[in-house]
Amino acid sequence: MAKKKKRNYYDGTTEKEVRIIPLGGLEQIGMNMTAFECGESIIVVDCGLAFPSDNMLGIDLVVPDITYLHENRAKVKAFFITHGHAAHIGAIPDGRRDLSVPLYATRLTMAIIETKLEEHGMLESVERIVVKEGETAAAGDFKVEFIHINHSITDAVAFAIHSPAGVIVHTGDFKIDYTPLHGMPADLQRFGELGEKGVLALLSDSTNAIRPGFTPSEQKVAEFFADAFQQYPDRRILVATFASNLNRVQVIIDHAGKAGRKVAVEGRSMVKIIEIARALGYLEVPAGVLVDMEEIANFPEEKTCILMTGSQGEALSALTRVASGQHRLITVKESDVVIFSSSPIPGNEKAINRVINGLAKRGATIINRETHVSGHACEEELKLIYALTRPAYAVPMHGEFYHRQANREIALAMGIPEENTFLLDSGDVLTVTAHHAEVTGSVQHGGILVDGLGVGDIGNSVLRDRQTLSQNGILIVALAVSKARGELVSGPEIHTRGLLYKKGSEDILEEVRQIAENAALDALSKNRTGRLKADLKEAISAHFWQTLKRDPMILPIILEVD
Amino acid sequence: MAKKKKRNYYDGTTEKEVRIIPLGGLEQIGMNMTAFECGESIIVVDCGLAFPSDNMLGIDLVVPDITYLHENRAKVKAFFITHGHAAHIGAIPDGRRDLSVPLYATRLTMAIIETKLEEHGMLESVERIVVKEGETAAAGDFKVEFIHINHSITDAVAFAIHSPAGVIVHTGDFKIDYTPLHGMPADLQRFGELGEKGVLALLSDSTNAIRPGFTPSEQKVAEFFADAFQQYPDRRILVATFASNLNRVQVIIDHAGKAGRKVAVEGRSMVKIIEIARALGYLEVPAGVLVDMEEIANFPEEKTCILMTGSQGEALSALTRVASGQHRLITVKESDVVIFSSSPIPGNEKAINRVINGLAKRGATIINRETHVSGHACEEELKLIYALTRPAYAVPMHGEFYHRQANREIALAMGIPEENTFLLDSGDVLTVTAHHAEVTGSVQHGGILVDGLGVGDIGNSVLRDRQTLSQNGILIVALAVSKARGELVSGPEIHTRGLLYKKGSEDILEEVRQIAENAALDALSKNRTGRLKADLKEAISAHFWQTLKRDPMILPIILEVD
Repeated sequence: MAKKKKRNYYDGTTEKEVRIIPLGGLEQIGMNMTAFECGESIIVVDCGLAFPSDNMLGIDLVVPDITYLHENRAKVKAFFITHGHAAHIGAIPDGRRDLSVPLYATRLTMAIIETKLEEHGMLESVERIVVKEGETAAAGDFKVEFIHINHSITDAVAFAIHSPAGVIVHTGDFKIDYTPLHGMPADLQRFGELGEKGVLALLSDSTNAIRPGFTPSEQKVAEFFADAFQQYPDRRILVATFASNLNRVQVIIDHAGKAGRKVAVEGRSMVKIIEIARALGYLEVPAGVLVDMEEIANFPEEKTCILMTGSQGEALSALTRVASGQHRLITVKESDVVIFSSSPIPGNEKAINRVINGLAKRGATIINRETHVSGHACEEELKLIYALTRPAYAVPMHGEFYHRQANREIALAMGIPEENTFLLDSGDVLTVTAHHAEVTGSVQHGGILVDGLGVGDIGNSVLRDRQTLSQNGILIVALAVSKARGELVSGPEIHTRGLLYKKGSEDILEEVRQIAENAALDALSKNRTGRLKADLKEAISAHFWQTLKRDPMILPIILEVD
Repeated sequence: MAKKKKRNYYDGTTEKEVRIIPLGGLEQIGMNMTAFECGESIIVVDCGLAFPSDNMLGIDLVVPDITYLHENRAKVKAFFITHGHAAHIGAIPDGRRDLSVPLYATRLTMAIIETKLEEHGMLESVERIVVKEGETAAAGDFKVEFIHINHSITDAVAFAIHSPAGVIVHTGDFKIDYTPLHGMPADLQRFGELGEKGVLALLSDSTNAIRPGFTPSEQKVAEFFADAFQQYPDRRILVATFASNLNRVQVIIDHAGKAGRKVAVEGRSMVKIIEIARALGYLEVPAGVLVDMEEIANFPEEKTCILMTGSQGEALSALTRVASGQHRLITVKESDVVIFSSSPIPGNEKAINRVINGLAKRGATIINRETHVSGHACEEELKLIYALTRPAYAVPMHGEFYHRQANREIALAMGIPEENTFLLDSGDVLTVTAHHAEVTGSVQHGGILVDGLGVGDIGNSVLRDRQTLSQNGILIVALAVSKARGELVSGPEIHTRGLLYKKGSEDILEEVRQIAENAALDALSKNRTGRLKADLKEAISAHFWQTLKRDPMILPIILEVD
């Protein structure tokens, strides 16, 4: 527990209030989006997507519900984006629909956003303003200052949001790298100046708050790669990493180049982001190092390095196809070294193991230790940011609940009183003045499921059906009756999908047909066809449970003819 | 690389051969089962189940295909079981069906097996023989010696299989604990004696072969719990661990008792195994420490400890229900400390995080570091076993391919020539004599899927259907036609499940109905109903892809009436 010291609280020359309204990003990783409201102005920081959780079967992605912004359309002045990761920009095409206000971002971030807008045919309709680190943009009653920080993607910034109620610092995703490979360490001086003048609230990245110590510098990874390229002078090296980890891409290209290797890039998303970063000067590629994937076979293998996507075992990624022997151009063999320059995202471990096993079976040497550093601040870095900014209020952001809880523990250790720390839920309205802060209400919020082109047309009942279908399959019993004649005129036909193997199950299916026929004839003879569907469901369900302990979805279809 | 030294190979006084045939356990964790064949004798070591992988939707468990044993029924002399974990005993009820040969195991292992046999009503029909550590049982041409080793469950053994071709050592799951809390360290002397006389082949546990060093002693965990109970004298402590980790259960009961706490056990499987172990004297419970779950509320909370299942975030486990506030008896609150005494099994990370978040939201303090040691040998322990047994041939068992590959690297480092190491696939027949070993063939093998009471009636086509249904749902179009009259007499009716929300989708469903009606009328007018099903599928499929980029399963049902 750090010793409490006299704090330089915001001086409180105004009683104006600012409202902080997270619209996502607090219940799961991703979907980061926070609105800041003051008088007649709203600005929005980030507009990210989340990937579906295990139980969201068939869902492609999840975007935040922005009803609140639509309802307050006249107030919304601008969007500000911290950096170019999907969890921060991925919902821009959906989130911006019908909100024609400018979007501010740094140059690289904007270029990445533009590719998304282009895919959605929205490039023309969105006003885009590129801002440099150190500059400030005005939007309504707010002024937003872009502050340099370090992260795994280049050109990431924190914001100092100057509002009539005081200054709010939002770190975005960040780490502090004293020895970054390119560019400067985070602008600690500016955080310190802001702290000296008085920071009302600090919203900070909780992703790594449960980890003690300091996230190592990207320099560590550079040392690893320098060694690795030396250690295997006579072998081809394949490296898998996150497509958007531009710092890592730079490290690998640098050291492969120094070791006299040609580098080819495989994986559509990685090729694209490298193209953008190169064009804008964010990636420095020594002449002659990068070659096309199609050309690399022309060089001696030990003089090549293939940089690729798939470090998380993603189903269709380059590395996954290589591991299963289905890649068009790359065949892995005993002389290859495969480096995973990443750490597993929770939930991906099994898929990654499958890829590793596939590569190992083909004889490749696999390296996945000390090949990666995180892009997020650990405990000591968070303490540093608290110490520099000395906020009156602490609002842990980004990360699951227990990550944010750990961030709050850090705030408490830094002497912020417990009542000045807030673990918000999405939708909460945190109203802050110089002298007081409290949650004053809640606005509509949530995750909207996207499946194909459909946004929001999948609800819980559909997901429940998918769950049942995936576990137990479906049985359809179809028949045609003539009520007038009191006759069963066709069927019952029994169809199953995902329930059992037809071959060998003829007996049980015939039993079910018989049960259905008896139920239908019985109902018709008694002129009680109204309950026939329910009767069929019940009888067939009971039969399956008794004979096989299975519980398929039962769908009776009764066609009436006359 | 260890220096090679003169090796005491098996002396080769006989040219008899023994065949080692793994029937499972090599492509995934679990489903351990290996046959050993010599002349007219076959013995089987272990008979375990595997849990389904992600793509086996709705499958409860997987058991090995034992067609080979059935085909060689007359040769099969006995089953020998190393220890009582599901991956080693779980397929006994299925695997033993129609094989009326004795089953040998140590006392605790046998008691656990008996509960499984009882559930399947097979207790009477299986001859069961309890063997003590150090004893040897004869079966056909084999003699099987039970050797004490350490593992996370008590009474686990390795086997020295004395065959006419030589001695094969099968470690089962093992670690070496010099300071176990109860009982003795692994019987290193005996492994050494066997090595001195000559070991033909060593089959060893690869689970932790990728980890350097030595697995820490259970003593480490004991120290942790001694501290934990002291550190929180005024708080209730909940501990989640594996139901079958009896060593851990012992540690927790010991230290809770010493700290003056009452212990209650929650979770059916844990209650059961503790009952068995206590009855047989494998668990020492100081008088008055264990109380019923229903009674524990009568004691001051800070004088209690609840031991429970759910450390892997299993859906229906005690801890998961506690975390979501749905447990009948346990409500977690700020004063509680929850200890996860386990490490995540790959694939469970997300579920565990959900549980941790749920507990954190309720204010509990969560501890999940330094609370667990593995039950499997790391690199240095494997080296020790190789050094003691000095086998002519090394056959890495248990674990995914890259684990077994790491085990082979260790064997190579210990001086075993590469051609004497074998990374087998399930079904491989490894024929071994004193002078030679090679894979000489392959027998039928594989995983049989169990869903409810159905064993093997779910094939790939059913799983593929479940996959499609889970991602995209199903659309059924049903109609009745009279071919004689050339008329559509009822329908089409459109039904969907897991595809889209009905509300708001009326238009698209009406469009589909219209498409179906037109197709039907067209086919009837042209007297071409033979292709109607295919036409309906195609037209509806195309429509969904164009409008929503979705690809549901389409099932047309055409009832004929007259």
